[in-house]
Amino acid sequence: MNGKKLRIGFLGCGQRGQMLVLDSLRFPEVEVAALCDPYTDSNSNLANEVEKRQGNRPMTTADPQEVFDCKPDAVIIATPWETHVSLAIRALRAGIPAGMEVGGDSSEEECREMVRAWEETHTPFMLLENCCYGKKETRRFNMVEQGFFGEVIHCDGSYAHDLRYEVSFGKELRHYRLNHYLNENCENYPTHELGPIARILRIHRGNRMLRLTSMASKAAGLHAYVQEHKADDPELLSAKFAQGDVVTTNILCEGGQTITLRLDTTLPRTYSRGLTVHGTKAYFQEEGYFIFEDEGGRGFDEARPLWGNAEKYEDRYLPDFWKEEVKGGHGGMDYQMLRDFYARLARGEAFPIDVYDAAAWMSISYLSGQSIAGGSIPVEIPDFTNGRWMKQE
Amino acid sequence: MNGKKLRIGFLGCGQRGQMLVLDSLRFPEVEVAALCDPYTDSNSNLANEVEKRQGNRPMTTADPQEVFDCKPDAVIIATPWETHVSLAIRALRAGIPAGMEVGGDSSEEECREMVRAWEETHTPFMLLENCCYGKKETRRFNMVEQGFFGEVIHCDGSYAHDLRYEVSFGKELRHYRLNHYLNENCENYPTHELGPIARILRIHRGNRMLRLTSMASKAAGLHAYVQEHKADDPELLSAKFAQGDVVTTNILCEGGQTITLRLDTTLPRTYSRGLTVHGTKAYFQEEGYFIFEDEGGRGFDEARPLWGNAEKYEDRYLPDFWKEEVKGGHGGMDYQMLRDFYARLARGEAFPIDVYDAAAWMSISYLSGQSIAGGSIPVEIPDFTNGRWMKQE
Repeated sequence: MNGKKLRIGFLGCGQRGQMLVLDSLRFPEVEVAALCDPYTDSNSNLANEVEKRQGNRPMTTADPQEVFDCKPDAVIIATPWETHVSLAIRALRAGIPAGMEVGGDSSEEECREMVRAWEETHTPFMLLENCCYGKKETRRFNMVEQGFFGEVIHCDGSYAHDLRYEVSFGKELRHYRLNHYLNENCENYPTHELGPIARILRIHRGNRMLRLTSMASKAAGLHAYVQEHKADDPELLSAKFAQGDVVTTNILCEGGQTITLRLDTTLPRTYSRGLTVHGTKAYFQEEGYFIFEDEGGRGFDEARPLWGNAEKYEDRYLPDFWKEEVKGGHGGMDYQMLRDFYARLARGEAFPIDVYDAAAWMSISYLSGQSIAGGSIPVEIPDFTNGRWMKQE
Repeated sequence: MNGKKLRIGFLGCGQRGQMLVLDSLRFPEVEVAALCDPYTDSNSNLANEVEKRQGNRPMTTADPQEVFDCKPDAVIIATPWETHVSLAIRALRAGIPAGMEVGGDSSEEECREMVRAWEETHTPFMLLENCCYGKKETRRFNMVEQGFFGEVIHCDGSYAHDLRYEVSFGKELRHYRLNHYLNENCENYPTHELGPIARILRIHRGNRMLRLTSMASKAAGLHAYVQEHKADDPELLSAKFAQGDVVTTNILCEGGQTITLRLDTTLPRTYSRGLTVHGTKAYFQEEGYFIFEDEGGRGFDEARPLWGNAEKYEDRYLPDFWKEEVKGGHGGMDYQMLRDFYARLARGEAFPIDVYDAAAWMSISYLSGQSIAGGSIPVEIPDFTNGRWMKQE
């Protein structure tokens, strides 16, 4: 660092971009150098706020190329899903380290091109999967690493989040999800749950995902919601949403473990990432937040007396970085993620969620779409590492 | 009835048969007339107990034919899984009404032969799926019928039951499951969760199951258990179990609804049938036992404040037959099931879980095995009703 600040350019200043910009200002070593968004009001409002907090005003533009041209120390990409990867590729090829927000990807070609861009340039790249830094998730990962669960055989995860308002009011909110839900039917947002599970099952660290099948229910939730809440929008009232309400994806790993992912975003429900860890010695379940330790086969016991008991394990398994003061969005996991990103960027260290992880995790979206379109046929998951998953550290 | 008792023959006097015999003695209109089991000690011990309670001693035999020959008013079949259907077929063809215990089935031919035996004889037949009488399940079904959930789009269910002791000590316990777990890899016990879900989704009452895919994890739980608990059994220590620890099955229905079933019986965990009901107006989840009613998209809310709140809905939606005094096994649902079975038998009324339900629900076992063996390929679910699912009441 040599005392110099990290000059960061932000591509995408919508809801998510704003959160990342404001959380980044918590780090004194960071300078928000550039803001890029096609909506000039988003840009200038955010630039005002940044100027107030950090003293100098960031450059603003609607053109990502202008951000690349001013050679920031890194860019953070928080645009709509469909441009994450193409902007990351441009950044890598321009030699600018990139932190890329999550989402699914639409094609194998794009995932492979992202991998090629990294392999040909070795420009630092990180997928900004904040849930890999979550308090619940990192604690579980620590327990797995310490052998608490024995051998882990299966994990569940979900993106269960009632998004009917966000999708239906997509035009008003300038939200890209509406377009996806109208046109596409797949596991459209896999990484929040899959990222932590991939860590637990050591994907690309001696294991890999082999194959998946996906099944989608009918799409009824948004239609019902729109009748009630958007009665003044004839276009939406007659719209036929393509995205099934509940999508269930089963993934088989090389080591014989299985993963079940659930997308559940257009029916009324509570938020959950639905993590379970099924091991030979213990069981964890996020719903009810409990841990069951092996007692040699307890038969009919119900979980109710255990509800919430996972908290008893907190101190013993909480990673050290969670014991310091935590600030910022999403319960602090954004802060933890950005702290790690900026610290490694400053030290020139490799990022922990690399381009292979990003390609494999994001590929689940288009692969699940292929499976659903084919009547839930099994679809092979490409090995973006070309065999290096066997020994990658 | 004309004041005469219902003379019932019991095929299979193992653990489950004994429960059903003893629960049946709670009904004064029932006479336990015959007990049939290849283990003569099981037979005579149970006959002693029956004689003590009902005054006269039932006939005992190892040969089912002798039971059929004494023309009971009905037989109840609680033998190992693999003989349920063949014995039911013999009973139907002998004109003896049959109540058949649950399990999966091994072949389409056997399911079809059971359907033919009923269609050619119209001998009363009922699948004894006790969970269709469960307090939680019948209450949920009532809520669905009253429109509480709006349109139901998806349901989950599981047979999550740590059976490592029962399977590993199968020889000592005379338990047939050991043989299945050594040789077979499938959703081997689907009906406890699928039965109530089939009711909710009106399967064979205007809807049907179209297709499934299954994925099985590796088999590691029993091997780990045996190392610790059966170190003196060289045969088991070196045994290779075929049955995957966690099997996830996705089912698509004609109406566009989906069902996810989970078999989870060889890793440490708490018992659960894991029911969820995803509707356009509300959500229910057995894990955490909570209900979420639509509030127009509450975004990030977690379920914790709702845990256990499903109890608040009990009075309003509990079926009347659950409001009377309840006795007997499995929290009273065996009692409710037998009460309905004997009452309908006495009145000559049709049974509510018929041969088509039995065939469709039990077929999931061999179909899931086919899917797993083929690498999770989609497999069509036969229409055992030949189209009558559209209007069957």
